[in-house]
Parts: sequence; structure tokens; C-alpha cells
Amino acid sequence: MFNAITVIGCGLIGSSLLRAIDKNNLANQIKTFDKSKSVSTYLSKNFSFKVCDSISESVKDSDLVIISTPLSSYKEVLKEIKSNLKKDAILTDTGSVKKPINKEVLDLKLKDINWISSHPIAGTEYSGPEHGFSELFKDRWCIVSFEENIPHDKIQKLKNFWLKLGCKVKEMTFEDHDYVLSLTSHLPHAIAYSIVRTSVSNEKKFKKDVIQYSAGGLRDFTRIAASDPLMWKDIFIDNSENLLKAIDNYTENLNDLKKAIKNKDTKKLLKIFSSTKDVRKEIIEAGQDTEKPDFGRK
Amino acid sequence: MFNAITVIGCGLIGSSLLRAIDKNNLANQIKTFDKSKSVSTYLSKNFSFKVCDSISESVKDSDLVIISTPLSSYKEVLKEIKSNLKKDAILTDTGSVKKPINKEVLDLKLKDINWISSHPIAGTEYSGPEHGFSELFKDRWCIVSFEENIPHDKIQKLKNFWLKLGCKVKEMTFEDHDYVLSLTSHLPHAIAYSIVRTSVSNEKKFKKDVIQYSAGGLRDFTRIAASDPLMWKDIFIDNSENLLKAIDNYTENLNDLKKAIKNKDTKKLLKIFSSTKDVRKEIIEAGQDTEKPDFGRK
Repeated sequence: MFNAITVIGCGLIGSSLLRAIDKNNLANQIKTFDKSKSVSTYLSKNFSFKVCDSISESVKDSDLVIISTPLSSYKEVLKEIKSNLKKDAILTDTGSVKKPINKEVLDLKLKDINWISSHPIAGTEYSGPEHGFSELFKDRWCIVSFEENIPHDKIQKLKNFWLKLGCKVKEMTFEDHDYVLSLTSHLPHAIAYSIVRTSVSNEKKFKKDVIQYSAGGLRDFTRIAASDPLMWKDIFIDNSENLLKAIDNYTENLNDLKKAIKNKDTKKLLKIFSSTKDVRKEIIEAGQDTEKPDFGRK
Repeated sequence: MFNAITVIGCGLIGSSLLRAIDKNNLANQIKTFDKSKSVSTYLSKNFSFKVCDSISESVKDSDLVIISTPLSSYKEVLKEIKSNLKKDAILTDTGSVKKPINKEVLDLKLKDINWISSHPIAGTEYSGPEHGFSELFKDRWCIVSFEENIPHDKIQKLKNFWLKLGCKVKEMTFEDHDYVLSLTSHLPHAIAYSIVRTSVSNEKKFKKDVIQYSAGGLRDFTRIAASDPLMWKDIFIDNSENLLKAIDNYTENLNDLKKAIKNKDTKKLLKIFSSTKDVRKEIIEAGQDTEKPDFGRK
């Protein structure tokens, strides 16, 4: 499908991409670069992809270049690769924030390069190439964003790439992507970090108890709050405008609930609880989760 | 093990108890009462337990009486059964808040009755007897609380009952129970309700998107926010003192995070994220969740 593909940055996502590209035979040549020596050694030992020593060499002659590093490294990565990109190549990424990244790329005024941003909404709470797996993208959404001047056939080519990895693909503007993700992913993470911090800031006497009895709800938040710190620091900073607004709206809702608890306002409490119950139904209908009860898991 | 056991209230927990008592042969006679006609009909049709028409009759001659109704019904239930309880019987419950319930029972000045409160930390996001199952209590914690004057052999008898259902049993004071659960369960629920409300209070244009891409974090909160509204309204009101304090501490932590995002304080963000990552490890070590990555689930 592509003659050569380069993946830059080989954490959970990048290494899963390499595995999936290989498994699905999507390129004649697969090349990769990671600035960490231990990651490069791990990849050379375990896979047959070409692990490059130089980032600028790694993108030469590649028809598709995928940046899979933390967001804060994009600037440096782009600077290193920009003069070596093949004419007419597709340049994409896997980052969780789009608007500021798009600006970074546009500022470079790349010529004859098709910048089409991607965000495969996939991941686990583990990081590093040893946790990657080729099925990570199966049945997951991948959002693609691009400027109006990008040729249709290039967009279709990248969409087909994600479809072959098992993704469902959706087009969205850079701005809409950042707004929607601030609600579905970034706000939940901000909240999870805060509740886990609250629960363990305790007298020593209770610390063990809180861990011991976490199955009543807290457990589900700790999973989210265990995500990669380096990645999430970048996301929070790059999408800060949407995220701060979302936190403010959320705080208003929490204060509303607090007032209802304080006033023992049962009617109001029931109204709040019933409205959120309906959302669950819609999520299951949209195929985004299963009906299987989860609280009883070990 | 018991001659007769009565379960009052047959939702998810009550009906699971009936199934588990039956399966494990823990009583010669199993009796039950539910004030809902449709629930009683469902039970009569599907099981061989004695489904009683009268709540006061249902507890007669029972050695173990378990109240499994919503917390707000306890007062009425206790009033109906108190004069018919068998001498020396064990009276317990399955409620999620303990201190106010204990006060309700003590105020009745029951004579020759062993009130030992239970809280099996088990459940799913579904309610109603059709969702109950006998294995619900397996490997779950059950917290028992009691006053100092309760005979040791009665406590041991009730603890053995829960052990036979597969629970791990822990003694805790009524007060400590309510404090620990406010952090591990009640605060997470308050937060989940608020975030789901925030995410869907949106322009129509984005409502569908938020549901569609909920797998990035939001999904996990909607599961918690789909719990039974009637049950949770009672819990929030009965444990309001601990819960309101927990919400305040939590809001402080969230504001601290907000400040770090606003100031693009990467050092502070990394510190927050790393501390919550460690909690996850402790929870897995305590056997309260599995290591298996969960974000990739469909």
C-alpha cells in the first residue's frame, strides 16, 4: 500500500503501529526512529523493522511519516525531518491535541508535503514499546483533521491506512477535535488525578483502608490516573483553553450537586442521577462500551 | 447453618443473597418479603423461596434477618418487624451508610436481638431482582460493625455466613466505615454524576460526538453514574457530613491542578501525575483490580 513508512517515537502507540503495519503488510519497508537508546535496542532485538540511528535519515524516501512522540517533542522532530521529507509524502501524527500542533506545522510552510493529522483514540494505562500490540487500533475511532488545500486522494489514502488497522475513521476540524476531546478524555483525566489525590491524602490509619476497599468506585478512577505522566502533562498544557473551561463548567455542576446534598433535596438529586443514567444507555447503543456489569470484577 | 433466614427487600443485592443462601445451603428455610407486587410475583415464579405477603410475618422464627431495602425505608421496615423478631436472632443489613442507621436501630431499644450491621461491597450498575446472581459476593469485602455489648459467638456466626458466600470479612466501627466509604465510593459517585452532566450539557452539534468518542475516559465514569438513583440519593443524604467534607478537599485538589495548567507548570503537573500512578500499583497489589489494560476494551 505504501512503499515505505516511518514511525518516529516508539512508545505504546508507535510500537503498536509498527506491529500493526507489519502484520497487515501495509508497506514494503518499515523504518523507525526513537531518541532513546534503550528503546532502539529493544526494537532491534525483537523486530525486523529498520531501526535508524538518525531521525533525518529515517524519513528519507518514506511515503508516510507518522510522528508518535509526546506533543512537546514535535517542534524538535519537525525541525530535524523537514528538509528530508519526500516530495508528496503524507505527514501525520497520533497526538491527542490538534490546534496548536497544526499551527506548528503550518508555520514551517512545508512545500509539497500533505499534512493530515490523525488521532487514533486508543491506548492503555501502560506506556513503553514492550506494552504495544498490533490489535490496539481494532474497533477504535481515528479522527483525521486537515486544511482545505489537501488533495482528496491523499486524505483517502491515509483514511484507508487507518481502516486497514481496524479503525473507524471520522473527519473533524482541528478546533472541534480539541473541544470534543477536552470533554471525553481530558476533563475525565483531570478529575481522576484529583480524586485519587484526595482519597489518599489521609491519616495513615485510613490509607490502607482506602486502597483495600477501592472496588466501590475509586478503583475505576485510579486506572485513568495511572496514564503516562509525560504524555498527559503535554495534553493538559496544549489544550489548556478548552480544558480550563470544561473544569469550570464541571465545578459548577459539582457545586449544584453539593447544594442538593446539603439541603437534602431528594427531588433534585433524583433528577441529576436519572439524567446521567440515560447517557450510559446512549454510550452502550453507540457501541462504545459493553452492557456487561463491571463492578463485580475482581 | 441457620434454621431460617429472612431477606427483606429483593433488588440486586437482596435477590443475589437469596440465590447465594440457597446455593450454599445456609438455611433450612429461606423467606423473603418485598413491598413491590411485581417483584414478589417475579420471585414466586422463578424461585422456591417462601415469598411472604406480610413483612411482620416474614421475620417470625427467623434466626437471621437481613434488611436489603434502600436506606430510606429502614425506619418503616424496623417499625413493622420489631415486635415479631425472634429472641436472640441476628439482625443485619446490607446498607452503604452505617452511623445514622445504627442510631435508628439503637433508638428502638430492641431486647434480646443481636444487631450487627453488614456492608458487602458488591454490586453492578444494574438494579432489580432479575439482575441478581449467586456469585455476586465472591471475593468481595464485607464490612461488619457492631456495638461492644454484642456476644462474640453471634458476631462469629454472621462473619461465617459472609465467608460462606465467598466474602472477605473486616470489622470496622460505624464511624470509620462511613468515613472510608465516603472516599472510596461516595465521592467517586458524586464526581461521576457531575462529569457526565458536564459532558452532555452541550450544543446539539457536539452531543453525538461526546457519546461517540467516550472511550477516551468518559465511558468509565458513565458506568458509575448509571447506578441506581433511589439508592444513591439515600447514601448521599445519610452520609452527607463526610461526603461534603470530601467534596471540599477534592475541590481544593482540582483547583490546585487548574492553577498548574493555567501557569503551564510542567514540574507541578508531573508531580501530581506521578503520585497518582503509584496509588494504582498499590490497588493492584491489594488485589482490588487486575493489571490487564482496560482502555482497549470495546
